[in-house]
Amino acid sequence: MAVPRDRPPPQSTTTARVLALPDGGEIADRVSVEEPLEIRIGGRPVSVTMRTPGNDVELALGFCLTEGIRPRGARIPDDLAANTVEVDAPAFDPARLARSFFTSSSCGVCGKGALEAVSVEAPPVDSPLRVPVERVAAMPARLGLAQPGFSHTGGLHATGIFRPDGTLVVAREDVGRHNAMDKAIGWAFLEGLLPLSETILCVSGRVSFELVQKAAVAGCPLLVAVGAPTSLAVELAADRGVTLCAFVRDGRVNVYSHPARILVGA
Amino acid sequence: MAVPRDRPPPQSTTTARVLALPDGGEIADRVSVEEPLEIRIGGRPVSVTMRTPGNDVELALGFCLTEGIRPRGARIPDDLAANTVEVDAPAFDPARLARSFFTSSSCGVCGKGALEAVSVEAPPVDSPLRVPVERVAAMPARLGLAQPGFSHTGGLHATGIFRPDGTLVVAREDVGRHNAMDKAIGWAFLEGLLPLSETILCVSGRVSFELVQKAAVAGCPLLVAVGAPTSLAVELAADRGVTLCAFVRDGRVNVYSHPARILVGA
Repeated sequence: MAVPRDRPPPQSTTTARVLALPDGGEIADRVSVEEPLEIRIGGRPVSVTMRTPGNDVELALGFCLTEGIRPRGARIPDDLAANTVEVDAPAFDPARLARSFFTSSSCGVCGKGALEAVSVEAPPVDSPLRVPVERVAAMPARLGLAQPGFSHTGGLHATGIFRPDGTLVVAREDVGRHNAMDKAIGWAFLEGLLPLSETILCVSGRVSFELVQKAAVAGCPLLVAVGAPTSLAVELAADRGVTLCAFVRDGRVNVYSHPARILVGA
Repeated sequence: MAVPRDRPPPQSTTTARVLALPDGGEIADRVSVEEPLEIRIGGRPVSVTMRTPGNDVELALGFCLTEGIRPRGARIPDDLAANTVEVDAPAFDPARLARSFFTSSSCGVCGKGALEAVSVEAPPVDSPLRVPVERVAAMPARLGLAQPGFSHTGGLHATGIFRPDGTLVVAREDVGRHNAMDKAIGWAFLEGLLPLSETILCVSGRVSFELVQKAAVAGCPLLVAVGAPTSLAVELAADRGVTLCAFVRDGRVNVYSHPARILVGA
């Protein structure tokens, strides 16, 4: 019997007993499952993340890749009850992680040098990708159709990978928005699709610095979001050559950086 | 001249140049400011969080308190450009933090023992607080009125502290939902209002495990949320004696734990 590549999504939602007021009836409500996952490298715990179970190998691989750690692979332990993934990353230096989690610069994290202080080193994204604006505008709705968890619970974020022709290649859900993107990027790694220089990442919510960083490190030239961006998300996207489209809803597409990739009236 | 207690909120939003497609005009859009803040204890960096600048002392105090660290106070450094807060916590043991960030249990974080593995030790919340359901239902809208940042950018989370009579005592905003709650709890610490056993915490978004943990450690008996809860949020609220109301919108109040505190037809 073949060893499964990853832990399957066993249950992304579960039932909670709820008192629905003011009417007062007790109902069974679906809520998103949230559980801790410990990511280990060489037996050593490097991170604990609160995530929705399932696709844990993808999550661990995507997390490592976008933190600048080069994994060769990852596996779930024999004891499936343990919320743990072991990543194979021979070149990993634990001291590096300590530096990135607890910065040691003597000036703290200066506002001026914020990007340098917290960003992962990666070459700027260079891609000739061009996408018609109508296709960008349609992506969030397409992603929503692939998001069964959200319609049940209202509590799951999603990340989708799209081809330039508008085809959804894969969608991943999680209670944490960064986890959903890590899972999608980890999936692409396992499929041999990295860097994502010919594809688009689309997220169901807001865009923080962290999400732009993950997209940039994965080599993705176009990040599309339903929600609002932060200032540092815009700044990093501009700096790293990523086209950032946000507030993509109701036919509207706001382009915050590198607009040449978005074609109008094509 | 009196030393300011905290760094004032200088700018929670800033301007970004945006290409608004498909119409194609360039507009000035307001986006939420996101910058790193380094929290130090005894000169040693213990955490870097991506936050909206302002109320940084409150944020650092709330973070420490809800991580089980007992601060005496905190101060911003003389160099205001450094995004750093120094917390005074003489009893802090750095080894404790290493344990909490990188768990060392040999079995990983078992699904079964998830709560034990990741939760901060705190006594269960014991409070005779009772609140009419109509008053709970009205809190999110009241919080929204105190949230100028969101209406400009759509990108800021908020936490409010309410009295049982429905009065909003304080509201804090941030790009991170946990930061908004840390700021509110840090404010309460500075005002001598902890534990929050006679008050209600209300949040503008979804409820994760982490937010319930912060409320429980602050001694708050009632947590009200506009959005969806996760499974572990519900589980922790039930375990710690916190009444969790979520999906509080359009007059509806879903009670996920300890419903006796919510009065109907009173």
